[in-house]
Amino acid sequence: MSIVALYQVYGKSGSFEKKAEGIALGLTIGSWTDLPLLEQEQLKKHKGIVVSIREFQHIQHPLKTDLIKAEIKISYPSINFSPDIPAILTTVFGKLSLDGEVKLLDLEFSPELLAKFPGPRFGIESIRKVLEVHNRPLIMSIFKGVIGRDIDYLAEQLREQALGGVDFVKDDEILFENPLTPFEKRITTGQKVLRQVYEETGHRTLYAVNLSGRTSELRTKAIRAKELGADALLLNVHAYGLDVLQELVEDNNIQLPFMAHPAYSGAFTSSPIYGVASPLLLGKLTRYAGADFSLFPSPYGSVALEKTVALSLGEELTKTSAVKRTFPVPSAGIHPSLVPQLIEDYGIDSIINAGGGVHGHPDGAIGGGLAFRQAVTATLDGISLVEAVKQHEALKKAIELWG
Amino acid sequence: MSIVALYQVYGKSGSFEKKAEGIALGLTIGSWTDLPLLEQEQLKKHKGIVVSIREFQHIQHPLKTDLIKAEIKISYPSINFSPDIPAILTTVFGKLSLDGEVKLLDLEFSPELLAKFPGPRFGIESIRKVLEVHNRPLIMSIFKGVIGRDIDYLAEQLREQALGGVDFVKDDEILFENPLTPFEKRITTGQKVLRQVYEETGHRTLYAVNLSGRTSELRTKAIRAKELGADALLLNVHAYGLDVLQELVEDNNIQLPFMAHPAYSGAFTSSPIYGVASPLLLGKLTRYAGADFSLFPSPYGSVALEKTVALSLGEELTKTSAVKRTFPVPSAGIHPSLVPQLIEDYGIDSIINAGGGVHGHPDGAIGGGLAFRQAVTATLDGISLVEAVKQHEALKKAIELWG
Repeated sequence: MSIVALYQVYGKSGSFEKKAEGIALGLTIGSWTDLPLLEQEQLKKHKGIVVSIREFQHIQHPLKTDLIKAEIKISYPSINFSPDIPAILTTVFGKLSLDGEVKLLDLEFSPELLAKFPGPRFGIESIRKVLEVHNRPLIMSIFKGVIGRDIDYLAEQLREQALGGVDFVKDDEILFENPLTPFEKRITTGQKVLRQVYEETGHRTLYAVNLSGRTSELRTKAIRAKELGADALLLNVHAYGLDVLQELVEDNNIQLPFMAHPAYSGAFTSSPIYGVASPLLLGKLTRYAGADFSLFPSPYGSVALEKTVALSLGEELTKTSAVKRTFPVPSAGIHPSLVPQLIEDYGIDSIINAGGGVHGHPDGAIGGGLAFRQAVTATLDGISLVEAVKQHEALKKAIELWG
Repeated sequence: MSIVALYQVYGKSGSFEKKAEGIALGLTIGSWTDLPLLEQEQLKKHKGIVVSIREFQHIQHPLKTDLIKAEIKISYPSINFSPDIPAILTTVFGKLSLDGEVKLLDLEFSPELLAKFPGPRFGIESIRKVLEVHNRPLIMSIFKGVIGRDIDYLAEQLREQALGGVDFVKDDEILFENPLTPFEKRITTGQKVLRQVYEETGHRTLYAVNLSGRTSELRTKAIRAKELGADALLLNVHAYGLDVLQELVEDNNIQLPFMAHPAYSGAFTSSPIYGVASPLLLGKLTRYAGADFSLFPSPYGSVALEKTVALSLGEELTKTSAVKRTFPVPSAGIHPSLVPQLIEDYGIDSIINAGGGVHGHPDGAIGGGLAFRQAVTATLDGISLVEAVKQHEALKKAIELWG
């Protein structure tokens, strides 16, 4: 039972064995060679082990050209830590995160260790069942410009988005508890609006409401949300801590789908030299902690994740594992023309999420949602968007606008 | 009532006004110029405001030489968010943290907003009263190599450290709940050992025990620690979340000093381009959230914070503010020869914290602690260490070893 950490480091060729041994010992039993044999025997099962070292002879440090990149794998016995994310992060990247140019790329949990983590309570399959949508990517849109607006404004915006045929609408992550649109009121109003749209059109849209406030209040608020009939909860996971998400997911009194927002996560993931890799933080760990949906920067917008990183992130959320699959939600810069690319990159088990790409449509959010739905249908039918616009007015207007 | 964020960005000279306006609007009401006048009137109090833009014409981007550095100040009305750290971080650096090369350097809380934060329950003055030590820096040492060891081993190590005359001993931050040295046993054994040393020598040493486990269990464990007579609690704040610390500090059933460990914080602070500045995260926010002690990398060791950054961090913990002062604990690479420098840099209201610098002394931890005490006394008496070694054997051995 162990966890294996993969680190990216920089140094001189041949220097990495010593560095790796230093980490493996420093983050476990402290010293080894100067211990009496008897103590070595006792402490052996606690000792960190260097699993592998891989030098990239041709990848130089971006600034210091005498240094090359290496990837170091170290195994930490899980007897050393309690099976929770704070203890794991402190063990594998506590002191080490402060120790110069080192980035945590990945963590491999042994099966026994992974068994301590819930993963998503619902996952892709159960969410699909609720929506009765099985053969296409889901579509999500986001409230826009709702700070300072009242509940009628939100209700109207929600109605328009739902009428456009999106499957999910999510709160803006910067909408917190406030007197104009309080949490509970958003839930009850949202339910009313969406029920009405369902009665009118037969289309079901779910609403993810932003769960916010002090850490210890989240549980009570989430239970109240469940009682009021909320569909799903949005959480700014990284402004709280992954373990906070995990405890909410594990709570049998809540039992709601959780949507993990990446707010603040760029503070850990953006540097190529330091911090934590996005596929680990927003992918694997967010899935293990139990998010049913994970939002992350798409590889398409003006501010984008590198394509390989963004794909690997989606892979972490959906690849075979002992825990259920999490919906990848590549976000930012998404408009209907990107639908074929999104489906090629993320398959149908993903969520197409747009803000401006829905609200900015010439016919408003209704047209925006519709255009996305049309683009998805065409793409899955093997019809190019160029062809599809001939029959679909909303899609045509979108393509004219966004190209 | 507002919060003013200071950001470091890179761009072309003259491009920053637009960038700053985009942030100020994007993180608040979304749009402005295209709003009807009536709506502008309604939303005005929610609008982010660009306070200042400062271009550093001569500071180029480290890689892209056509870009220069700028600092942008934006004020966010606190009517937009609930007064908690997760909401604040999400507002000022949520989406923005994912938005390219931007680093959050500082946050200025308006007095009304700061009034919602507890700050340290004890602070420097109250901790000094407990120890009855008023006119010198305090000295702390750290357990070393305790993973896999039993309670007798810890007790012996604690006794030696206390006999050396240190004021605090802290747990290793990677020592979690474990059958050999469980949390409660560490507290009761520690109390027994330290009481005995006090009876033998009249010197009082306090022990900070590592509070770990699942987030929601921390409160109960902390209350139990208080009942068992614990002196102080160590918390890996950044592996949990700053709000978790704040709620523990605010809890009237706990009322113990909190020592904030910087484990994992390097993932946010290390990059010069991305993330959050150390003086903000480990300084101001850690103080506002209520830590009585904040550990951070010293500017002296092999892996060190830049001197100006490390000094500014200490300043954030101790400068005049509506909240109490937090002990700065510059850590790593500290040995007795550095004492004059430490006192010059951090004054007497700081903690001199050493691991190897105590345990690595030729006479063991007793000699190590003693050498630090001797170095402090000499320095405060205006005697150079070169002079002092003539009368102090432990200090002499330390200086011979560490120079």
